[in-house]
Amino acid sequence: MRAEIISIGDELLIGQTINTNAAWMGAEMSKISFLITRMISIPDKKEDILKALSEAAGKVDVVLITGGLGPTSDDITKPVLCEFFETKLVNDEKVLRMIEEMLLRRNFSMNDNNRRQAEVPESCRVLYNASGTAPGMWFEKQGTIFISMPGVPAEMKHLMKEHVIPELEKRFHSQVIIHKNIMTYGTAEAKLAETLTGFEAEMPESISLAYLPSYGIIKLRLTAIGTDRDLLRLQIDSQVRNLYRIIPDIIYAEDEETMEMTTGRLLRTKNATLCTAESCTGGNIAHLITSVAGSSEYYKGSVVAYDNSVKTGLLNVPEKLIEEHGAVSLEVAEAMAKGARKLFSTDYSVAVTGVAGPEGGTAEKPVGTVCISIDSKENTVTRKFAFGGDRNINIMRFSVAALNMLRMAISGAK
Amino acid sequence: MRAEIISIGDELLIGQTINTNAAWMGAEMSKISFLITRMISIPDKKEDILKALSEAAGKVDVVLITGGLGPTSDDITKPVLCEFFETKLVNDEKVLRMIEEMLLRRNFSMNDNNRRQAEVPESCRVLYNASGTAPGMWFEKQGTIFISMPGVPAEMKHLMKEHVIPELEKRFHSQVIIHKNIMTYGTAEAKLAETLTGFEAEMPESISLAYLPSYGIIKLRLTAIGTDRDLLRLQIDSQVRNLYRIIPDIIYAEDEETMEMTTGRLLRTKNATLCTAESCTGGNIAHLITSVAGSSEYYKGSVVAYDNSVKTGLLNVPEKLIEEHGAVSLEVAEAMAKGARKLFSTDYSVAVTGVAGPEGGTAEKPVGTVCISIDSKENTVTRKFAFGGDRNINIMRFSVAALNMLRMAISGAK
Repeated sequence: MRAEIISIGDELLIGQTINTNAAWMGAEMSKISFLITRMISIPDKKEDILKALSEAAGKVDVVLITGGLGPTSDDITKPVLCEFFETKLVNDEKVLRMIEEMLLRRNFSMNDNNRRQAEVPESCRVLYNASGTAPGMWFEKQGTIFISMPGVPAEMKHLMKEHVIPELEKRFHSQVIIHKNIMTYGTAEAKLAETLTGFEAEMPESISLAYLPSYGIIKLRLTAIGTDRDLLRLQIDSQVRNLYRIIPDIIYAEDEETMEMTTGRLLRTKNATLCTAESCTGGNIAHLITSVAGSSEYYKGSVVAYDNSVKTGLLNVPEKLIEEHGAVSLEVAEAMAKGARKLFSTDYSVAVTGVAGPEGGTAEKPVGTVCISIDSKENTVTRKFAFGGDRNINIMRFSVAALNMLRMAISGAK
Repeated sequence: MRAEIISIGDELLIGQTINTNAAWMGAEMSKISFLITRMISIPDKKEDILKALSEAAGKVDVVLITGGLGPTSDDITKPVLCEFFETKLVNDEKVLRMIEEMLLRRNFSMNDNNRRQAEVPESCRVLYNASGTAPGMWFEKQGTIFISMPGVPAEMKHLMKEHVIPELEKRFHSQVIIHKNIMTYGTAEAKLAETLTGFEAEMPESISLAYLPSYGIIKLRLTAIGTDRDLLRLQIDSQVRNLYRIIPDIIYAEDEETMEMTTGRLLRTKNATLCTAESCTGGNIAHLITSVAGSSEYYKGSVVAYDNSVKTGLLNVPEKLIEEHGAVSLEVAEAMAKGARKLFSTDYSVAVTGVAGPEGGTAEKPVGTVCISIDSKENTVTRKFAFGGDRNINIMRFSVAALNMLRMAISGAK
């Protein structure tokens, strides 16, 4: 089955909003075996919306549309849908009541803008939206299903989960698409591709492989397309086993597991606790760790030692060490890790000190230099890396490198 | 002038990669007065790529293409470009030498995949890429310029900044588009739209207004389109003055200034220092603050007190306070703020304790409850909010609310 995603909104085209909705919908539709043939972002303009709708009608099975349904005057999707589906706006009593209740709960009063949100095209089936004020709308034309949803991510996701996905699943079932991700860390893309040349050549026709790099992690995505789910599952499993044979050292997890999820899982298994001491990453490692639900079970806390006085004061790093080796040094990283582990009384600690940039680089320690130390009762591992890139990329690369070292320390990998 | 953006890659369509490239290119092209007519994401498939190229040829002035130029076999953009522009791949000596040097610097050796990256379509003008191994390519057909770039964000950005933007600026200059953003915090979208009904009705034809909400912040984007830059500038300025008259209390900054930039700017002006104490936000506030270059001038550090023992131990929150009022309470937030300010010896401190979810909510303190305290020599302000949403949305909403309270404390706003 084929689907297309249309995102409406000037803010997308001028780059003020990143289109995370399309990615999320693409992932969900893939899970129920839809092939996304294209994603298109268009402005809040009548002609562009009509053109995109016409292009899709009769070509794909399903068109998902988001955006342009807000309470403000720049949102014109609803009248344009009426024109395309040759219908008119009518008041929907149930939507009106739901909006009233929602506003009451938030202590807002109803205004004309809200009332306008209760109007829907007469010919559509309304998808009631318990998480916001704009309802979803389901149309059919030329054999294609068109579903229009608000652009607010939480509202779109609610409608997709409650209405769209279950109904599409009921209606379509023939072609099957299965994805399997193998997560790797520690090699470059071209190098990995070279290692896997033979593997790729021997893959069955039904399977394809993609390389998806991000901050040092390369996700290997295997995709199988066919009609027999069990057969595809067996084929994928066999390819995964081959990967574990060819590149055992760099695989750290499967599926969509991030490095912070993997370390969390390992800590949980070992019933061990963790703390962090961050300089240049400024709280990002703590943020990644705590973005995993349930992290309070193993994570105790962090000292963000942005200023050197915090390194010496709170983390007990000897001032002499900083004078002799500089704040960005193996010695200081190790002292930070030991200081943090003592302060928080945890089984493991991670410490990071480096130069994220754009300022602060020197010939000896250019922007992108980072020292990372992992301390535990058993041992201390400290390493220096030379990355290099802009500030926010460095902060992410340093963070992932630190979590990877922690993972290796916990799992006993070398 | 009109432009279109084509993003190539299966990973975009199945939602495994969020298309941040298109947003970035859209923003840059807008700055040099290009109107982006659409953004389209298509799979690594020959027919889809050819179709997208044909659809754009002769319709827009410029087509920016990213993706599918990597060293791995799933990348097919280059041969498809050859087919579309009726040319063939030839070896480019300069690209080969640049790849060699780059690999040498990273201590990687050259392989066949890398050598293939030095092949370019004969009819294109090569845009040399000093930041990666895949070069950019500039074609012209039916009056349309096609520019193909790698999908790796850093490499694409490098080519855009060094080659594409400067050359397009030289070649085109007629229609002018000006954007101006006014950043607001503290009201709901429908409410704000109601307040601005009269303002919108009286705007000149050449100007449009959009509402862009994100974690409590609503960005008001004014867009002026015309031919006379000075006139448009005057019109925009006059609208901005009107906004300051109508909604003075909720405007916190202009342009793309985030809350963490605003607070940083205010701290710098006052020559004041800051520290943070975070529980449920788990380092995200520290991360936001330190994502601003130069933040080390005013930011000293943070204690992420994820575990209650860290609140009592490091931040000196009396155990009795937690027992009596619970860890999520005005009393504990205030004690955390005072404890942190003493620990780090700063002028201001921000403390946050709340329930981010999905676990940990109670009838009295449901998921989304947060207590925030700002402490300074002059006074202490502590407030409780009830948001509600999923974990990562809550972490962001809490963080922005805390930074907004800090902003008000520093600027003396009520």
